Amino acid sequence: MEKKFKKRGVDYPIVDGVRTLPGKYYHSPEIYEEESQKIFYKSWQFACRAEEIPSPGDYKLLQIIDESIILVRDKSSTIRAHFNVCRHRGTQLCAEHSGNFKAKTIQCPYHAWTYALDGKLMSAPLMQEGHGFVKEECSLYQAALHEWEGFVFINLDRNPVPFESQMGALVGRFKDWKMDELRIAHHIRYELNCNWKLILQNYQECYHCPGVHPLLTKRTPVQSAQHDVSEGAVIGGFMDLTQERGSMTMHGEAAAPPICKTGEDLQRIYYYSVFPNLLLTPHPDFVLYHHITPLGPDKITNDCYWLFRPEVIKDPTAQAGISSAVEFWDLTNRQDWQVCEQMQIGTKSARFDRGYYSGREDILHQLDMEVLKALGHTPGG
Amino acid sequence: MEKKFKKRGVDYPIVDGVRTLPGKYYHSPEIYEEESQKIFYKSWQFACRAEEIPSPGDYKLLQIIDESIILVRDKSSTIRAHFNVCRHRGTQLCAEHSGNFKAKTIQCPYHAWTYALDGKLMSAPLMQEGHGFVKEECSLYQAALHEWEGFVFINLDRNPVPFESQMGALVGRFKDWKMDELRIAHHIRYELNCNWKLILQNYQECYHCPGVHPLLTKRTPVQSAQHDVSEGAVIGGFMDLTQERGSMTMHGEAAAPPICKTGEDLQRIYYYSVFPNLLLTPHPDFVLYHHITPLGPDKITNDCYWLFRPEVIKDPTAQAGISSAVEFWDLTNRQDWQVCEQMQIGTKSARFDRGYYSGREDILHQLDMEVLKALGHTPGG
Amino acid sequence: MEKKFKKRGVDYPIVDGVRTLPGKYYHSPEIYEEESQKIFYKSWQFACRAEEIPSPGDYKLLQIIDESIILVRDKSSTIRAHFNVCRHRGTQLCAEHSGNFKAKTIQCPYHAWTYALDGKLMSAPLMQEGHGFVKEECSLYQAALHEWEGFVFINLDRNPVPFESQMGALVGRFKDWKMDELRIAHHIRYELNCNWKLILQNYQECYHCPGVHPLLTKRTPVQSAQHDVSEGAVIGGFMDLTQERGSMTMHGEAAAPPICKTGEDLQRIYYYSVFPNLLLTPHPDFVLYHHITPLGPDKITNDCYWLFRPEVIKDPTAQAGISSAVEFWDLTNRQDWQVCEQMQIGTKSARFDRGYYSGREDILHQLDMEVLKALGHTPGG
Repeated sequence: MEKKFKKRGVDYPIVDGVRTLPGKYYHSPEIYEEESQKIFYKSWQFACRAEEIPSPGDYKLLQIIDESIILVRDKSSTIRAHFNVCRHRGTQLCAEHSGNFKAKTIQCPYHAWTYALDGKLMSAPLMQEGHGFVKEECSLYQAALHEWEGFVFINLDRNPVPFESQMGALVGRFKDWKMDELRIAHHIRYELNCNWKLILQNYQECYHCPGVHPLLTKRTPVQSAQHDVSEGAVIGGFMDLTQERGSMTMHGEAAAPPICKTGEDLQRIYYYSVFPNLLLTPHPDFVLYHHITPLGPDKITNDCYWLFRPEVIKDPTAQAGISSAVEFWDLTNRQDWQVCEQMQIGTKSARFDRGYYSGREDILHQLDMEVLKALGHTPGG
Repeated sequence: MEKKFKKRGVDYPIVDGVRTLPGKYYHSPEIYEEESQKIFYKSWQFACRAEEIPSPGDYKLLQIIDESIILVRDKSSTIRAHFNVCRHRGTQLCAEHSGNFKAKTIQCPYHAWTYALDGKLMSAPLMQEGHGFVKEECSLYQAALHEWEGFVFINLDRNPVPFESQMGALVGRFKDWKMDELRIAHHIRYELNCNWKLILQNYQECYHCPGVHPLLTKRTPVQSAQHDVSEGAVIGGFMDLTQERGSMTMHGEAAAPPICKTGEDLQRIYYYSVFPNLLLTPHPDFVLYHHITPLGPDKITNDCYWLFRPEVIKDPTAQAGISSAVEFWDLTNRQDWQVCEQMQIGTKSARFDRGYYSGREDILHQLDMEVLKALGHTPGG
Repeated sequence: MEKKFKKRGVDYPIVDGVRTLPGKYYHSPEIYEEESQKIFYKSWQFACRAEEIPSPGDYKLLQIIDESIILVRDKSSTIRAHFNVCRHRGTQLCAEHSGNFKAKTIQCPYHAWTYALDGKLMSAPLMQEGHGFVKEECSLYQAALHEWEGFVFINLDRNPVPFESQMGALVGRFKDWKMDELRIAHHIRYELNCNWKLILQNYQECYHCPGVHPLLTKRTPVQSAQHDVSEGAVIGGFMDLTQERGSMTMHGEAAAPPICKTGEDLQRIYYYSVFPNLLLTPHPDFVLYHHITPLGPDKITNDCYWLFRPEVIKDPTAQAGISSAVEFWDLTNRQDWQVCEQMQIGTKSARFDRGYYSGREDILHQLDMEVLKALGHTPGG
């Protein structure tokens, strides 16, 4: 049975004088370097799910531009984010992408300096203290860390702003979904030839949906799109499902029992972009998220995860539903990547000065302003 | 029966004080960037043969440094050169190298803005005019275009110089060959690790022929070389065939009936370099041309085409002749690429300041001067 | 039977205020370019073994950053180091990595200019002297060359310092080994992703040995390490073998009869780093050396050679010994490359400002000072 979706946001005129960013913001190595310094080395950003390192000693490496971070659960079960750099002579401590530090210590492979899981230097063979060497001052460098609903965020800045000042809009949001209890049911890594910002932009407008996503448009019509949050780093909105007890799946029906409560939430797909590197998509029955990792001005990896309730993941009869959700989004993702990559190529032309935003893309201008503000650039360009 | 070739241009002394370009002109990324701006984005250059897009809707993509151009035949059968960039947000419109726009429109894959084949914006879904958006001002950007004897030339500059001011020497030249009636019989793409200018230089002297091209030297002795045109972008000359009714083929005989008329032309191979990217080689019986595409200071593609009369191409008994011409030039090309690539490597040495030009290479100095003039550099270096 | 090794150099305190180089010295393209100009294009450096080009006409190419050098034995049996660049227009003369110039001349493949093996221009077809072209001034450019104990060193500088002023510490050293009589028994090329200086540093301290090289530590304990020479470019030391008539082999026994004389030498492995590109390791029974070739700030090739007496190489019963030496060092090499590559990665972190040197790594500070002196940089960084 089909339910009427609410019609919203149709045919806005374009905002006077508002234009897209100039093409150089997607191509210039200098701007990319500036973004590294002023955004990726300075902002709170998504790191991993807490469930990925469940036990003391479990670790996962995270690459942020040139910085490798060891996300590790220490003996007291606290998650730490250590810079993957020995304090002796700078050697990368850990080369394996993930695993468990069996000895409950982190030992440098070169000269065997050994650190506790909380980062404290425990032993430096044959080193005498004094003459400028003080053991207590040689703990591993740590990044600030904050956990929200099972999502681990870190900040590499030496003096990070409080989490709430950047991510305030998240606090208390989506409580009903009990996202900290969800678990990863599936993961796909995409390697894309485009700038990281094009993925955020693509996620924040459905003007492209009728042509690019015929199936998605059937599930959630473009006219139902509505923005509900725009506070600094967090920009969010939702779309209405046409079908009752529907979801974003190949067959159109829910992939699992509901994980939220209210009637409105049960009929909506939320799209929250958590600047700069997380796209969060709560469904009535599961949660999808994308983790964007820039590798250069025109190259990213995009890791897409499907979160379900643990009992659903374990239930053999629920696997078809999970697969249908995975297939739906894998299809939709690939449709998006194609146009994002073509936009990357086209915007390199010297003839592309600055494009237009339709009324359906007004929120992209806010995203642009967030980037310019972080870089300290004038909107005029 | 062998006919005596005319002996010309033997043992010129080197011109006093004339030396080659310094090595940086073949290696420096800065000079390559300057060449892009001042030569490839500003000059008339070869784009394609008109026959490659014979019918309305037929298109072929052309890459000029960072610019992708859609060469397309519109509904009125006029060839257009559109920048491959949507006016909405800069997306590359077309990703396939060649094909036919079936709907006789060019539609952006991202938000479905749709253009007529002549570039006019026909529809932009949900966009209201006003507030800075005027549909008529959003046609595709176009490059200037000129057709000469079936060869399509374009110029990306916003205010291009007249075709004749750069290519005047071509106008009326080679009329007898009826080159617009010829068709592509064969095409080979070569990927080369050398600067684009080394290919032009290689083409403009036969000082290297005795050692590099033993077979070519048998057909057209180096002492017969003579220059007949040197007007700006067009530098040309010819060599005499030793054999009557001969041509540049493996067996030495003509590959097809003559396509030119006068006795002299029937005994000559013309070598015209059409700066910056076309090498044109009319034979008595067919026409060869090379299309050079720079990909970096030390990388090009070189597309070599063999043009014959259409009735020859269709004639089964003529295929052996075509093959013999293809084989001859493929062999000769490969001999040239080898030494051009070795010159690229050697000139990177800091010890290579500036080389010498023999009397047989005097025309290369004119080519250098053409480059320096375009760049606004002093010959002194 | 095991012999007691001498205990030396234990638990030195770190030198006050001494810290490692900042990370940029391993990563910055600008510093790499500076090193090219001020070290690799200016210093004496190892080129090849004289035995590699035994007869007139034999040659081997050597790449030093952007310069290709032809190492060739001329008609009078003198070894020459020619820049691989034709004086006509800069073409690379020779593309094959090694071989023999059969005609006893070096001929340019492009226009056939022909040089004697000693570099003199013999013929330039069709070139008339005068107008700025003087044949005698067109010999191949040559690098300075010095042979020491069968090791050929060259210097690309136009005004090279005397060999002895840089390599004085080598003169007369290791005479007993008669290294000029030794021959290459084995060669392994390693491609490594690290800065060239990390390999020198790795070679000059055994602080890492207990953890990284368990087998090497068994043969030569870390506490036996002692430095005996530190004169400019030459920094050397030795370690004691625990086993009498032992050597660095898998089985621990000598691989061949002794090639040195005195009792002390028979019980020692010498480690000499000959800045900037040779690591020389005389054993009692063979000589190992590494030839380091930088390919970028974070890329090198490292060619490792095993030298034995010619009669040993020819002796079928001696092959097992040679293999055991090869296997031992191949194992040890790979252990080192792993940590050097991890140090390369880790030092890229902006958090790695400057590391510490333990008392066992004091000699690395001298190596750093040698680099800074050559670059004209202040130790403060």
